[in-house]
Amino acid sequence: MVFQTLIERKRDGEELSPAQWRAALAGYLAGEVPDYQMSALLMAVVWRGLSPEELGTVTAAMLDSGERLRFDGFALPRVDKHSTGGVGDKVSLVLGPLVASCGAAVPMMSGRGLGHTGGTVDKLESIPGFRTGLSLAEAEAQVRKIGCALFAQTAEVAPADRRLYALRDVTGTVPSIPLIAASIMSKKLAEGLNGLVLDVKAGSGAFMTDATRAAELARTMVGLGEAHGLPTVALVTAMDRPLGRAVGNALEVEEALATLTGEGPPDLLEITLALGVEMLLLANVVATRNEARGRLVEALESGRALEKFAQVIEAQGGNPALVEDPAILPQADAVEIFAAPATGVVTRVDPHPIGEAVVAMGGGRRRLEDIVDPTVGFVITVKPGDRVTARQPIASVFARDADGIATGMEALGRAVVIGERDGEALPLVIERID
Amino acid sequence: MVFQTLIERKRDGEELSPAQWRAALAGYLAGEVPDYQMSALLMAVVWRGLSPEELGTVTAAMLDSGERLRFDGFALPRVDKHSTGGVGDKVSLVLGPLVASCGAAVPMMSGRGLGHTGGTVDKLESIPGFRTGLSLAEAEAQVRKIGCALFAQTAEVAPADRRLYALRDVTGTVPSIPLIAASIMSKKLAEGLNGLVLDVKAGSGAFMTDATRAAELARTMVGLGEAHGLPTVALVTAMDRPLGRAVGNALEVEEALATLTGEGPPDLLEITLALGVEMLLLANVVATRNEARGRLVEALESGRALEKFAQVIEAQGGNPALVEDPAILPQADAVEIFAAPATGVVTRVDPHPIGEAVVAMGGGRRRLEDIVDPTVGFVITVKPGDRVTARQPIASVFARDADGIATGMEALGRAVVIGERDGEALPLVIERID
Repeated sequence: MVFQTLIERKRDGEELSPAQWRAALAGYLAGEVPDYQMSALLMAVVWRGLSPEELGTVTAAMLDSGERLRFDGFALPRVDKHSTGGVGDKVSLVLGPLVASCGAAVPMMSGRGLGHTGGTVDKLESIPGFRTGLSLAEAEAQVRKIGCALFAQTAEVAPADRRLYALRDVTGTVPSIPLIAASIMSKKLAEGLNGLVLDVKAGSGAFMTDATRAAELARTMVGLGEAHGLPTVALVTAMDRPLGRAVGNALEVEEALATLTGEGPPDLLEITLALGVEMLLLANVVATRNEARGRLVEALESGRALEKFAQVIEAQGGNPALVEDPAILPQADAVEIFAAPATGVVTRVDPHPIGEAVVAMGGGRRRLEDIVDPTVGFVITVKPGDRVTARQPIASVFARDADGIATGMEALGRAVVIGERDGEALPLVIERID
Repeated sequence: MVFQTLIERKRDGEELSPAQWRAALAGYLAGEVPDYQMSALLMAVVWRGLSPEELGTVTAAMLDSGERLRFDGFALPRVDKHSTGGVGDKVSLVLGPLVASCGAAVPMMSGRGLGHTGGTVDKLESIPGFRTGLSLAEAEAQVRKIGCALFAQTAEVAPADRRLYALRDVTGTVPSIPLIAASIMSKKLAEGLNGLVLDVKAGSGAFMTDATRAAELARTMVGLGEAHGLPTVALVTAMDRPLGRAVGNALEVEEALATLTGEGPPDLLEITLALGVEMLLLANVVATRNEARGRLVEALESGRALEKFAQVIEAQGGNPALVEDPAILPQADAVEIFAAPATGVVTRVDPHPIGEAVVAMGGGRRRLEDIVDPTVGFVITVKPGDRVTARQPIASVFARDADGIATGMEALGRAVVIGERDGEALPLVIERID
């Protein structure tokens, strides 16, 4: 195979054959194809896209480059949820234990945060002692034992995706719907699932700001799941404001704990239930949407969901007393109240400057090797549409020091817009795709 | 500068500023920007193109990365001709000495062949002893002394272009009109010229098969020359059949010698004169096209042009007796006649299989490090439109051995099409652009 001719074909808008794609990726992994040829091919893919057949081949090749979870002989159906990420999106922390407490197993492999959206693994690691670095064998054993494991993507899974992503990250070749879909799905297909729910976020706090493109990504991933025999449903959801009230790792864990008892912010609870209903339906442990919703609410109110989270924390090295005593979480050194600058209606809470500020304050990553401060962040108690009066406290900044407080206050000043009338907000669930 | 953001801007169809382009190229040359980022940027340029301002900046940056010829205090005007290359294109060998014998100086820096089109440097090197590797100082001194030097692009000239071209060559990023234009013009602008004529070839034997794209390349280069204060004229010419009769390095030198006495094939003579007229006009050594043509014909017929070539050969280490005795050139071991397979009209002589066969027979390069056999090639005595009778000899194959002969005969069988009526051929000069 002359790799250059593959680049030329893709550049000229032609399809590569399954054999060509497999040889290309194998050659790259074997070190026979240099980075500079692969990056040119990736840019050609950003330009020309991938046909459904090419997408299936690339995804399968990345999946097959690594190991996968195997649940032979395990009775419980496995389902998972994947989110494309958003500011304040702590749904996974709630949904994993919640669904696992309703009769389905949840082998939830997550990523770290990069840029302005946080990552589930970082949030979990704000729990003292919590170990996210399970091997696949450990994760599998834990799922078989307690129905849920919340762990970080391991080097065993889809190494081709890991190599390619590192290259895409520095060559401007990340924003390609087929490449994003292949990257996500190659990992989710390794989880040994019976059903997958995707939460594709749209808005300024998400990777996809545009709901149309978010829906296109959702459809691409749903098609890819189905093509691999994995029943997949996607919800396109609002990320034009932060989800819930808390943004920042430990603060989000605290809010997730509240939500696990049914006491969380309404938007977070609503998204969690919407996604949970889809998961229980895909797991075939309920017959109807109403039954699913009832089962989820009951698990929250009975304390079973919270108890499942305690089991997960304990299994992964954390202190399960956390679920009763959130003060076990690390606390920020500096806190300051942000007051409404005027009387009126909150027309906007822009998640983007909020997410960026968390990174700037040390609570997120610019590069993968950055160390994350779990304590910093925001609690923002207003939502678009709320009426406020001048000087009314509407948010808190949690920081390491005065500099961090200043960064946070400045970000809130840009993010929160107060006007005379309601602004336009996206519906919480924009579209359902299956 | 974060290089990645430059890739992203170009990917998204935006322009980079002159400062950004200069920093990008300087960073690449300094080894601070890795090949894999540059190749992604180059593919984004193939996709999105370059604005005229960007093109000017990139060309100037490549030019400024190296040295240039300086003719301070030299009385003669300098002109050169550059061809984008075609099968049988030995015009430079004729035109350099010819124009230099008409009162203009010709500092002609050329490249080696790669792929199915030959290179002027390879043709010159079939002359025993001929040294193409002049330093810039040597080339400059020779032009000052005898008005002409025919030499290879040196490492001193536009090293940024050399580095970029090597990367483009293996990453599918060659066919971009602005990148091709910048590459050619960054070298031509280093020659210290008063005028430049471009021969942009169109057809299956050229790099640009399509005349419309060839004209676009021509316009881009003419604009770039003018923007740098270099009067530039382009002719778009036919490369849907080989130029002249000879294809192959030593065979082309022999044909060039014949043409320097006015005895060459009509099409080669016609193209040479058309380009020479433009050169003399740009050099301002004649007032009208008629005067230019008259001067050129007189130089051929009087033997002054041939004598100038003898001077160049002698100055560069070859035996000037060659111009009287072409048998000094190396000769092929095997020769075979190709006969017309049928009676009829030659509807096509496709230059592409002919050029490819020369490479396959050892007379061209697949990679830059390949060694070229100067003796192999073809002499094809028919042109589209000629009537032939079955078994009439219409071509000769020159090869190293029987395998080479077989390759050459097979190529002729594909290249020469005999039918009942004239085929469609491009006019020799398709368009003039200034």
